[in-house]
Amino acid sequence: MNSLIMSARDLEFLLYEWLDTARLTEREYYREHSRETFDQVLELAQDLATEYFAPHNRANDLHEPTFDGEKVHVLPEVERALKAFAEAGLIGAAMSERVGGMQLPHTVFTACMAWFYAANVATTSYPMLTMGNANLLAAHASPEQIEQFVTPMIEGRYFGTMALSEPQAGSNLADITTRAEPQEDGTYRLFGRKMWISGGDHELSENIIHLVLAKIPGGPSGTRGISLFIVPKFLPAQEGSGTQRNDVVLAGINHKMGWRGTVNTAPIFGDGAFTPGGRPGAVGYLVGEPHRGLAYMFHMMNEARLGIGLAATALGYTGYLKALDYARSRPQGRPTGAKDGPQVPIVDHPDVRRMLLAQKSYAEGALALQLFCATLIDDLRSATTDSVRTRAETLLRVLTPIAKSWPSQWCLAANDLAIQVHGGAGYTRDYDVEQHYRDNRLNPIHEGTHGIQSLDLLGRAVTADNGAALSLLLDTIGETVAAAGATGDAELGHFGDDLALATQRIATSTALLWKSGDPQIALANSAAYLEAFGHVVVAWIWLEQAIAAHGHASVFHDGKRAAARYFYRWELPRTTPLFDLLDSLDRTTLDLDPASL
Amino acid sequence: MNSLIMSARDLEFLLYEWLDTARLTEREYYREHSRETFDQVLELAQDLATEYFAPHNRANDLHEPTFDGEKVHVLPEVERALKAFAEAGLIGAAMSERVGGMQLPHTVFTACMAWFYAANVATTSYPMLTMGNANLLAAHASPEQIEQFVTPMIEGRYFGTMALSEPQAGSNLADITTRAEPQEDGTYRLFGRKMWISGGDHELSENIIHLVLAKIPGGPSGTRGISLFIVPKFLPAQEGSGTQRNDVVLAGINHKMGWRGTVNTAPIFGDGAFTPGGRPGAVGYLVGEPHRGLAYMFHMMNEARLGIGLAATALGYTGYLKALDYARSRPQGRPTGAKDGPQVPIVDHPDVRRMLLAQKSYAEGALALQLFCATLIDDLRSATTDSVRTRAETLLRVLTPIAKSWPSQWCLAANDLAIQVHGGAGYTRDYDVEQHYRDNRLNPIHEGTHGIQSLDLLGRAVTADNGAALSLLLDTIGETVAAAGATGDAELGHFGDDLALATQRIATSTALLWKSGDPQIALANSAAYLEAFGHVVVAWIWLEQAIAAHGHASVFHDGKRAAARYFYRWELPRTTPLFDLLDSLDRTTLDLDPASL
Repeated sequence: MNSLIMSARDLEFLLYEWLDTARLTEREYYREHSRETFDQVLELAQDLATEYFAPHNRANDLHEPTFDGEKVHVLPEVERALKAFAEAGLIGAAMSERVGGMQLPHTVFTACMAWFYAANVATTSYPMLTMGNANLLAAHASPEQIEQFVTPMIEGRYFGTMALSEPQAGSNLADITTRAEPQEDGTYRLFGRKMWISGGDHELSENIIHLVLAKIPGGPSGTRGISLFIVPKFLPAQEGSGTQRNDVVLAGINHKMGWRGTVNTAPIFGDGAFTPGGRPGAVGYLVGEPHRGLAYMFHMMNEARLGIGLAATALGYTGYLKALDYARSRPQGRPTGAKDGPQVPIVDHPDVRRMLLAQKSYAEGALALQLFCATLIDDLRSATTDSVRTRAETLLRVLTPIAKSWPSQWCLAANDLAIQVHGGAGYTRDYDVEQHYRDNRLNPIHEGTHGIQSLDLLGRAVTADNGAALSLLLDTIGETVAAAGATGDAELGHFGDDLALATQRIATSTALLWKSGDPQIALANSAAYLEAFGHVVVAWIWLEQAIAAHGHASVFHDGKRAAARYFYRWELPRTTPLFDLLDSLDRTTLDLDPASL
Repeated sequence: MNSLIMSARDLEFLLYEWLDTARLTEREYYREHSRETFDQVLELAQDLATEYFAPHNRANDLHEPTFDGEKVHVLPEVERALKAFAEAGLIGAAMSERVGGMQLPHTVFTACMAWFYAANVATTSYPMLTMGNANLLAAHASPEQIEQFVTPMIEGRYFGTMALSEPQAGSNLADITTRAEPQEDGTYRLFGRKMWISGGDHELSENIIHLVLAKIPGGPSGTRGISLFIVPKFLPAQEGSGTQRNDVVLAGINHKMGWRGTVNTAPIFGDGAFTPGGRPGAVGYLVGEPHRGLAYMFHMMNEARLGIGLAATALGYTGYLKALDYARSRPQGRPTGAKDGPQVPIVDHPDVRRMLLAQKSYAEGALALQLFCATLIDDLRSATTDSVRTRAETLLRVLTPIAKSWPSQWCLAANDLAIQVHGGAGYTRDYDVEQHYRDNRLNPIHEGTHGIQSLDLLGRAVTADNGAALSLLLDTIGETVAAAGATGDAELGHFGDDLALATQRIATSTALLWKSGDPQIALANSAAYLEAFGHVVVAWIWLEQAIAAHGHASVFHDGKRAAARYFYRWELPRTTPLFDLLDSLDRTTLDLDPASL
């Protein structure tokens, strides 16, 4: 039975026919695992996603969380799903055994998470945030903090948030004003307002662990003065008393276009609603050293960015499966030129096939990219040589903005096409695809907008260390081009030629943009750079898949070839005018007088 | 005060600085009008849209119509707005004096309607449908039918629908099964189900006049056997009795992602809920001759397609104005390289300017295209020479699919960018732009999907009469290229060169596609053809605007130049890979085995 959530067959192809994930078990770090344990956990993810997550996806949309001024109310189905998720041990599945995790390869865990995001992105946000929070603390917090906060998160008793943005400082964290005043006992008291905090309040868990960016008075200005604090909703029991409420309350909750099942809040820290220990301020515990908060947070943020990319991918993927199912079962019209005879399923119309192939190339291309990035994280965790770890870290530097933004743009485009394949039906709430489209629209915004990702890519990732990351990526792509040629297959060789030209254009444009030495000119058209760069990366990932499918004769492998062909014929050529624009150092936006808009 | 609905300044530019609309008053048909009456009605439209339509746009979305099994309930604000609209005489404003209209030029009326669509697309749908209905009847119905049905529509007492689609036959009207059985008294009895019928039931008007496509038993098969019927909700009073209910009831209403204020219904004709005159069937009155229904309906459908293009345009336009307003007032971040100093409004960031310029080029380009098409309709109505009328009819043939589909695609893209400019705020229901995005997503679907438009353009419009329409369009564009050169302005000349090359590519691709003589091959990539063709047409419209702005020094005119520059540098080059794909006669979608998807 096809659940229309995710494709188990495609995951099998990507993990075992392409990425050779089973070989990870040869590494010391993953020695407890085997192909069998991988398959068991994948099957578990499919089962839980199908049984506990997918059924209330629409209910999440229709009955968004409410705030009665004191408590946030969430659908009971969310709590049941998260209980099942935690009881299966999934929260700690990819975490180190040192902190109580299962030490499952991140590649396998990413494949598992694809099921949950596709089934119900809003409900899955709660464990996503909790896992990001726990991973950050596992890396940077003290052993006592880990025991006190991470262990109950892995057990599913505590949930986490990341509290960065403030109303007056959205993307720009240098301007946050939440302050953390040191206390004599080594704790801090926090005062300030945050904005867009997902999971910021609810009754789903015993406690909520906020990771809050704040400034300690007297510290350096800008981002170098930001520290990171653990601010629990409930403070630990003191001798002779039970738990007490910390001074974190909500100014309100945000009402969104989609992704409605995840409560999104505007919390206030230290406004005096509660006075823990009789004193004002929200009690916070410093993580690591003062003023290093942003560096720590980036640990979580990079992981969160890959998570958002995966969520966008999963929404594009499930929308594609549903559009395909609809196109195969909906009879309408006849082949070009035919006047009589029975109606044919709309999948027979070339333009419907185009829309399906486009979705397939976006969703499967994005999923493959996510899994490739996951193998790099596995290398970071488990490789025994420094060179492999350095390679992984370097590639992740340049691939993370792509892995976040590309699926956010193109799997949203896939959802748009999924609606179009459904026709009028796709615009109604009787079908899932309109919700996927609304849900997916958040992804180009949160965890760094497209604009932010483009500045990260062009302004930092490709310039750092004299362009080491870019060189490594282009060399890695070059290896794929060589492998394509080595197959002796004419079409693969042709794709390789196209890809080699496109990578050359990345190199040329990057050099041209930075030649002037003026960041204003270099960065003015960063959005075009991100878009072109992303398409080249996904073309590479499609060539990788086409090579893995080479020599295998089945309709499944034919599908991989068809999608690769589509991507090389319809999509990669889109980059040419973008590179042309970049190479012209176009000043249209730079020179514009905003008064003329 | 800037209402953020539409730009009165831009309308003034388009109508008077570009299109010379005032000269229409020299024509006999428009002799009663003057620039003063034009300006009065434009101001009236702005006032009514601002006062009666915009204020309940969000309420329409939050409180969609409900159906209690008998009646459809709509917000009372909708009724008030439509009363004001009708009382101002706007329903018949652009209709002939012969049927009680005001005979206002369609160009001016289109500008008026832009205000209403931008203010509240859902409420405006009711008069849009009514006007389309009344126009069709005015052209094809008998004088008695006109008096009986059109006059009360102009007075705002009756509303109209167009009932084409059926559940088993969405885009393909050849497969409709609703049948119309002739009666001895010359009327018909209709039996069948329709789908996606906007305004199909409500309590907003005294009567609802459905224009229904149905087949008379024994007629030709396919589309040549379709006839058109007037089917009122209430039948006229017979001697000795009041009005009685016709046998039209609802199977239900559709719940959409957006455009929620317009009730969308699934009506059933002749299911026996009512038995007018004691007999089964919904009473219908034949319009014109039997089996000519589709030809008549196309009269309404072409008008409706331009109306949809205008609605899409207006939504893109108002979204742009709101994004611009937000970008000017929202401080965040600093210029590239600056670490200190106050935050700047986000309009200062190049990537935000890019998103605003793109929106401006889409929305203003689309609006100009709509008004240009409106001038062609004015030529049809009022030109005194056959050659002018023929030219107008021929150009409309090829421009209508563009005017419908291009704004549906690119003004939706504008709404997407409007959300992005707002950041997280744009994803919440506290701001208008997320609703515009949802509302606008309908436009690529109804009144003929993109796929249908692309087949109409490539399969019919550019091939009919040995390509007469295409030749005329390319010649007309050539005149603009020549005019650009004649200005002596280097940049305009350069735009003209680019446009000339792009039109040459249309000619070449069209010829190549049809060279094989196999419609399957020619039409396989019609979507790419539509997209490339549309961008070239709008590039032409932008050159027209830039020429009109030439020599005028003001920030407003600078804005036109900047948007034209953006379109030529960023947008027109997108067509190159599309033409390349078309010229390759790519068979990716045609040869695809659907089983491999």
